[in-house]
Amino acid sequence: MKNYKMIICYDGTRYLGWEHQPGKDTIQGKIEQVLFRMCGEGEEVKVIGAGRTDAGVHARGMVANAVMETELTPDEIRNYLNRYLPEDIAVKEVREASERFHARYNAVGKTYRYTCFAGPVKSVFDRKYHTTLDKMPNVEKMQQAAEYLMGKHDYKSFCNNPQMKKSTIRVVDKIEIRAKSGYIHFTFHGTGFLRNMIRIMVGTLLEVGNGNMKPEQVKEIIDAKDRSQAGPMAPPEGLCLIEVDY
Amino acid sequence: MKNYKMIICYDGTRYLGWEHQPGKDTIQGKIEQVLFRMCGEGEEVKVIGAGRTDAGVHARGMVANAVMETELTPDEIRNYLNRYLPEDIAVKEVREASERFHARYNAVGKTYRYTCFAGPVKSVFDRKYHTTLDKMPNVEKMQQAAEYLMGKHDYKSFCNNPQMKKSTIRVVDKIEIRAKSGYIHFTFHGTGFLRNMIRIMVGTLLEVGNGNMKPEQVKEIIDAKDRSQAGPMAPPEGLCLIEVDY
Repeated sequence: MKNYKMIICYDGTRYLGWEHQPGKDTIQGKIEQVLFRMCGEGEEVKVIGAGRTDAGVHARGMVANAVMETELTPDEIRNYLNRYLPEDIAVKEVREASERFHARYNAVGKTYRYTCFAGPVKSVFDRKYHTTLDKMPNVEKMQQAAEYLMGKHDYKSFCNNPQMKKSTIRVVDKIEIRAKSGYIHFTFHGTGFLRNMIRIMVGTLLEVGNGNMKPEQVKEIIDAKDRSQAGPMAPPEGLCLIEVDY
Repeated sequence: MKNYKMIICYDGTRYLGWEHQPGKDTIQGKIEQVLFRMCGEGEEVKVIGAGRTDAGVHARGMVANAVMETELTPDEIRNYLNRYLPEDIAVKEVREASERFHARYNAVGKTYRYTCFAGPVKSVFDRKYHTTLDKMPNVEKMQQAAEYLMGKHDYKSFCNNPQMKKSTIRVVDKIEIRAKSGYIHFTFHGTGFLRNMIRIMVGTLLEVGNGNMKPEQVKEIIDAKDRSQAGPMAPPEGLCLIEVDY
């Protein structure tokens, strides 16, 4: 048995998210199915992802690992996966990893990008990979608000899991907001993120950008530790997991 | 009544092509429906396109004109269209044109791009806008073959309309083939193209690139004036109408 590290790309549009759910289309489920077949349909293959992405969220650099028994080389495993996976999931790389490598426990950082589009004419060809806004928000105000969101904080107000028993303290060391040709790209880097945290941060930043909230209010929202104080959750299609650090 | 010129973008994946067909989803049909409603559902509105694109073919710069009676400004017409058209059709620009402007008769040139992908890992996010190849063809050989295809020729061998009664002579003044990061982009410019002509030219060039045909054979194919001598028709999803010249 060897442990393999994989880098995976997917268009999450038609999936219920990363995590395996019996009878549902999920990315983890699709990959496990193909690997099970590849390994001769003996034992089940378990694929461990660096994290879970929500229904409709995309990834350009999801990392996962799987312990398997196979005679194929890593490149052959990659080719096998790409041949049998649906066209909206691709495996960019397969490498042999140390037996202790665990895609979730060993992840030390993640980069996510959220993309909005507010141009005068809707954008046809990448329409499934951004959220369309009615008007261009004030980017400078959102950048001011983002300053409060960065750092080490208790992000309870930005977590959609009311039963969360573990710590809701996280470190977000980068929030970059750039506007270009009608697009607004939000790039987040942190040690890890709570359930729906990025989408709630984006929803809150857009409230600021649309003038419904002052940048300083974001500080109060953090201090409140109360989900109802933050903005709405931005839709999934704008979100993409870009990279996982180890 | 005024004449309006429009520049239209569409993802042709789910359409039976540009041209109106009763009871079928076509791009012309969708636009005519919305304009009919916009003009108060009085007289039918006829949209004249610069040309027809096949089922599944895309456009970034289709040009069309329509003679209509409306109080809306050109920008308001554009916004109305973008609000009510499906998400895979967008109108980039609407301008008032001279009453004699005719999108088809006045077109003097067209640029099409055909995109193939032959990278080691399938490409997920733009998968509907290219044709995937099993292996990278020889670009230099295709460029040699393209030299024969350029110029003023009778392109009967590259026309899928056996009943074509009119002249099959056309001028193709540019065929550029570029490979980059696993993609191969074929750019064609000419005065006009016969039915399926670009897809048959690409299919023939790929035969050369895959070593099934010598570059010089393309000259013989042109001279034969016989469709059966040319290569197969490349699939529609790789093709996009980029620009129309007037």
